[in-house]
Amino acid sequence: MPPNTLHKTYPWISPSNPSLASAPMLNIATANLAISVSKAGGIGFIAGGYNLSGLSAELISASKQTTSLHPTNPLPAFYTDTGLLPLGVGFLNWGADRAEAISILKQHPPAAVWLFAPTNMPDDLLEWANEIRSITPRSKTASKPQQRIQIWVQVGTVHEALSAQQTLHPDVIVAQGSDAGGHGLARSASLMTLLPEICSTLPELTQTPILAAGGISTGRSLAAALSLGAVGAVMGTRFLACAEANIATGYQREILRATDGGASTVRSTVYDSVRGIHGWPERYDGRGVVNHSYIDSVESGMDDEENRRLYRLEMAKGDDGWGPQGRMTTYAGTGVGLVNRVLSAEEILDEVWEDMKRAIGGLTAWQ
Amino acid sequence: MPPNTLHKTYPWISPSNPSLASAPMLNIATANLAISVSKAGGIGFIAGGYNLSGLSAELISASKQTTSLHPTNPLPAFYTDTGLLPLGVGFLNWGADRAEAISILKQHPPAAVWLFAPTNMPDDLLEWANEIRSITPRSKTASKPQQRIQIWVQVGTVHEALSAQQTLHPDVIVAQGSDAGGHGLARSASLMTLLPEICSTLPELTQTPILAAGGISTGRSLAAALSLGAVGAVMGTRFLACAEANIATGYQREILRATDGGASTVRSTVYDSVRGIHGWPERYDGRGVVNHSYIDSVESGMDDEENRRLYRLEMAKGDDGWGPQGRMTTYAGTGVGLVNRVLSAEEILDEVWEDMKRAIGGLTAWQ
Repeated sequence: MPPNTLHKTYPWISPSNPSLASAPMLNIATANLAISVSKAGGIGFIAGGYNLSGLSAELISASKQTTSLHPTNPLPAFYTDTGLLPLGVGFLNWGADRAEAISILKQHPPAAVWLFAPTNMPDDLLEWANEIRSITPRSKTASKPQQRIQIWVQVGTVHEALSAQQTLHPDVIVAQGSDAGGHGLARSASLMTLLPEICSTLPELTQTPILAAGGISTGRSLAAALSLGAVGAVMGTRFLACAEANIATGYQREILRATDGGASTVRSTVYDSVRGIHGWPERYDGRGVVNHSYIDSVESGMDDEENRRLYRLEMAKGDDGWGPQGRMTTYAGTGVGLVNRVLSAEEILDEVWEDMKRAIGGLTAWQ
Repeated sequence: MPPNTLHKTYPWISPSNPSLASAPMLNIATANLAISVSKAGGIGFIAGGYNLSGLSAELISASKQTTSLHPTNPLPAFYTDTGLLPLGVGFLNWGADRAEAISILKQHPPAAVWLFAPTNMPDDLLEWANEIRSITPRSKTASKPQQRIQIWVQVGTVHEALSAQQTLHPDVIVAQGSDAGGHGLARSASLMTLLPEICSTLPELTQTPILAAGGISTGRSLAAALSLGAVGAVMGTRFLACAEANIATGYQREILRATDGGASTVRSTVYDSVRGIHGWPERYDGRGVVNHSYIDSVESGMDDEENRRLYRLEMAKGDDGWGPQGRMTTYAGTGVGLVNRVLSAEEILDEVWEDMKRAIGGLTAWQ
């Protein structure tokens, strides 16, 4: 049996390496990135976000990209066998319209749907999960059993993990620690304690596979996540420096520049505020590289309206609006200091797995 | 060669397990705890803190405890051979008086001194390090080379690690992540990214051994810290539930009770404020279990003076002053949810090492 137990559900993924997924980063995680990650043996996610107006087009693009691959590639084979796109879609559930989402998912069902940040966690997700599960496409080859869309649920505390498990019976739990870039719980632990406490709290026999998110930039941190009880990991910040990511040059340049991730990033709600995004439930904030929006808000006490006005002016600068002196938001996790060059999705996955093996090899002296 | 490279400097420690130290927790890490940890094959630290009035008495107690051990025990043998107590002493350098500290250390030199939180990092520590290094006791057995007191320096960012390395040439770097209980940098990453970024930044050839601190409560997290590049770990919160710790019953009960460490603890300066402690440099705050001091300050906007007055009243309640409804400070890291019973120092070390081996064993499928 291959050590990767998710391989039977996502048969295109590397059977001998721990699962790696690309996070559904708003605006950045498009079909190109998702397909590239899946082609490389990971699980790519397309960002559905809270405004679903662009999602259908991305799924159509993913469908075309999948069917245009050589028929011996495992991606088109999976698509034909199951009717499911070989990738996932992520929603921000506080804002996404359920009826619209279900309608889109029926047209282009993906292998997995990732639910995150409902107003009420986990209760608001129950109808989502039920309706998504009922969308089970017919296998195009009659001999294969039908495969339903898998439900991934993101949690940030032990309590969320336990209640999500009991209420939603997710297929995968994504446990997000405090190092993560972008949005997450304002009050949270890192994976160092979140993962082992979730593992020791969830009933062992019914334990859902856990993927770790937040601070996983390298193979060393993947090895750490596995030690802590995860079966794999999700990377966001690392994929901001991916050739296939849909990211502004200024944003990507800032990701490559920033070092000392704990000192150069900060958790705050100011980046939502300047961009006029108001829907996030109160328990969330977002981690980004410290810039002038933050400094003006926290150190100079600038009011939100003036800060927002300056942000809008900054947009005219294009790529030069990013950076510590700029105002464009650079969402990034504390792992940003370990991200120093742009690689393809395939190169990223291969490097992380290889570094992970080296890190694990270094531990065997202690056995 | 034993895999633990610190064993040649601290010959009483377990040669076949990664180093484990007990943190110099103010008021709690007394001679009893430090000697118990060293006896169990770890490195125990006595808290010197910022007010050194009680330190001599603790070192005298440690000396008596060491010499009263059976002569075949490695602790008295090390003490005789080197003139150094088989343990360490930690200082809070923003407050501790250097002349007083040096005078005490000359009387009772320990194997290691841990420097933390000077007003100016790392410059203020240079004279400390130089003066401490010059205290090298005569070996009582002429055949042995003299061993000097080792300098441990605690850092919380990559920048601090690099500048400490260049300025102080420490013997050990303690890298503290954001999960740590008690004081640490308000803006910080967890060990997930702090350790690998320090390792990739410090020049490889001159690399100082790094011990990980912050969120290490179990063997899983020790294995994770090793994957991330540390050679061992420091535990604080875990030793709050140690039979040999000098801790109030109410405090310890709260450590055993608290779960979901990321949600139940918070970083704040309110716990210093209510206790009237004002010397910490501004870049620090402290992580503790959420209680009424915090809630009143942050949610109700209570002014500091009233909050301090209520804290002083709460002290009369004794052990009942701790807890979510109380006001006594429960400094603890996010690993608090993994600390569920009181064990001896020896049982803690043995359990952590055993769990670590199990966690490492589980990784070998991925090699």
